[in-house]
Amino acid sequence: MSVQTGADLRALRERKPLVHQITNYVVMNETANATLAIGALPVMAHAPQEAEEMASVASALVLNIGTLSDHWIEAMFLAGAAANEARIPVVVDPVGAGATGYRTSTAERLIGGLEVAVVRGNAAEVATLAGRKAEIRGVESVGADGSGAELAQAAARSLGCVVSVTGPVDHVSDGERVLAVSNGHELLSTVTGTGCMSTAITGCFLGARPDAPLEAAAEALVAFGVAGEDAAAEARGPGSFHAALYDALHGLDPDTIDARARVE
Amino acid sequence: MSVQTGADLRALRERKPLVHQITNYVVMNETANATLAIGALPVMAHAPQEAEEMASVASALVLNIGTLSDHWIEAMFLAGAAANEARIPVVVDPVGAGATGYRTSTAERLIGGLEVAVVRGNAAEVATLAGRKAEIRGVESVGADGSGAELAQAAARSLGCVVSVTGPVDHVSDGERVLAVSNGHELLSTVTGTGCMSTAITGCFLGARPDAPLEAAAEALVAFGVAGEDAAAEARGPGSFHAALYDALHGLDPDTIDARARVE
Amino acid sequence: MSVQTGADLRALRERKPLVHQITNYVVMNETANATLAIGALPVMAHAPQEAEEMASVASALVLNIGTLSDHWIEAMFLAGAAANEARIPVVVDPVGAGATGYRTSTAERLIGGLEVAVVRGNAAEVATLAGRKAEIRGVESVGADGSGAELAQAAARSLGCVVSVTGPVDHVSDGERVLAVSNGHELLSTVTGTGCMSTAITGCFLGARPDAPLEAAAEALVAFGVAGEDAAAEARGPGSFHAALYDALHGLDPDTIDARARVE
Repeated sequence: MSVQTGADLRALRERKPLVHQITNYVVMNETANATLAIGALPVMAHAPQEAEEMASVASALVLNIGTLSDHWIEAMFLAGAAANEARIPVVVDPVGAGATGYRTSTAERLIGGLEVAVVRGNAAEVATLAGRKAEIRGVESVGADGSGAELAQAAARSLGCVVSVTGPVDHVSDGERVLAVSNGHELLSTVTGTGCMSTAITGCFLGARPDAPLEAAAEALVAFGVAGEDAAAEARGPGSFHAALYDALHGLDPDTIDARARVE
Repeated sequence: MSVQTGADLRALRERKPLVHQITNYVVMNETANATLAIGALPVMAHAPQEAEEMASVASALVLNIGTLSDHWIEAMFLAGAAANEARIPVVVDPVGAGATGYRTSTAERLIGGLEVAVVRGNAAEVATLAGRKAEIRGVESVGADGSGAELAQAAARSLGCVVSVTGPVDHVSDGERVLAVSNGHELLSTVTGTGCMSTAITGCFLGARPDAPLEAAAEALVAFGVAGEDAAAEARGPGSFHAALYDALHGLDPDTIDARARVE
Repeated sequence: MSVQTGADLRALRERKPLVHQITNYVVMNETANATLAIGALPVMAHAPQEAEEMASVASALVLNIGTLSDHWIEAMFLAGAAANEARIPVVVDPVGAGATGYRTSTAERLIGGLEVAVVRGNAAEVATLAGRKAEIRGVESVGADGSGAELAQAAARSLGCVVSVTGPVDHVSDGERVLAVSNGHELLSTVTGTGCMSTAITGCFLGARPDAPLEAAAEALVAFGVAGEDAAAEARGPGSFHAALYDALHGLDPDTIDARARVE
């Protein structure tokens, strides 16, 4: 299997996968709009009374712990179990793992208790979950033990799923292979929630290609990175970049994106 | 009584109605900004300790179930009862009715238990509440039994209030008359929360014209649709459209809007 | 000590203070993006399980009651006590104080129960907390007993901390001195959350200059006001202004900002 972002973007837009997201308050609007802009359908539903029902009709489930509390965690487990039962891929974004014990332990419990297809985090979050030393300030990675490629591979083996470590260069691994994605732009780090958006987009591509999580995760980062490059070309700063990012996601061209992918 | 969007937009901006919104996490910022941009004042307050007090001083109350949970529903009923007591119009947006039992039953309970002036939803949500077959994916209408005009009228009779069914053409009915509003632009469907914004704008117009819910609901959709048309003229995609939409709402001209209204 | 916005903006960007925010649902994304754009790091965390841990590693704590409920108030007190213990400055934004008893009493309890460095509010909110007559519609100040400068000074004495009263002209006082900041633009009042953003920016400057809350609070309003002026120069309305505001915050130049400061 190979990375074929154009073909899978086309499939995504034809299938319009429903991506159920139990995510944080800060980025809900942003991940919903990114999901729509790439061509999928978002739905947010966190009540225990409906989380299972919604997850079971979705094409992917995204769990993001950015502003967690106990009753949201309960819903994440209910939705996750329903998704597992229905063989729907689950993506986990361990926002701030390493910053507080509550976040670290919740991320560990989710990944340990559910069958997770992909974990997407920054280097410090992933290193924390792989049992390594890491330094995080709030939700920003400051340092982590190990380099991106090696870290992604080790974490994938340790966590038993595909792991995406995003940063200036992104690394995606299933424990055996490691893909490095160099698309993107530094303006992405000036807008909150772009990491969460890349997780949501990972869910979108998994919804289109559930049988190949490594490839889907890499394709998502290619697509998001190319959109970031396009948006940066029009931006005068973080605000205009943010607006242009949705334009760029919406305008991604399946016919030309593979020529722009920087994947190794 | 007739649809007089320009005159009522002018009245709205003079009166600056306070529109109390108990709405979903995804769109709170967006509906608040749409409310400000059209010329009204938004306030969000969902604690049971203050929901009644806030509702009783508002000019309209908007209840939106897009990311509901039990203690929010409790607040909706408290605020709704206070609004009813104070003769303040209540608008309900049944986001995702039909997608989960929890949403359907909550929407039914709100509409059944409160005196509601207007329900604003997409075809699948409204058809679900009217007891018809409907297909919804997350919060997006895929199909519904019956056409827009007929559905709006039947739902208005069944629910006992004005019903707005929005889509490529919007239909508003009080059970007797049916108004069709053709303003709008397809880019509206590429941004999350535009339906919720149209509900908030409905609350704004009701705050300016509480005695004529059918007309107020139609005028809101005219104003929002014309703004969508203006925004689309400047947009390069969903992100620039979204920003331009607030510019356009703010820039709506009471003197010219009636000439642009497409109402039948 | 004096107002030296350029020097402190430069220090802020070098230090990148982590600003822990327990704030309202409407503006979380916006205050996080404003924090990033000025050059600091935001983190949102409201669970009682982690509020203390997060606050104790931050450089400033911002408490904003815009959409409060009981378990959020609990987290605010836990985080506030941890910040006090660690000598980290606390900023309180009493959104809607005066509009409901719940908001007024919560703001009073926070300011009375914690050691607060700065309270930032509009005239009606501050007047309410100073025990004066005030009129507020939702969260918009309609009238207050006393003028800005006199109100800021009296409130600072009454509340025992620095008080910023923002409006067309902002007034900041520690009970002795009063600084008037005339930077800003009327478009700021057309976008929801700009007051909350100015509170977050106050937290950022306090993180850079914790020993001088009066100056830090005034510098924050200078920086935010100058950014508003820059954004207005590019805006066609509230939506484009909003996007341009982040561009402008990000683009603020420490070398030239003091020449543009209008402080008395």
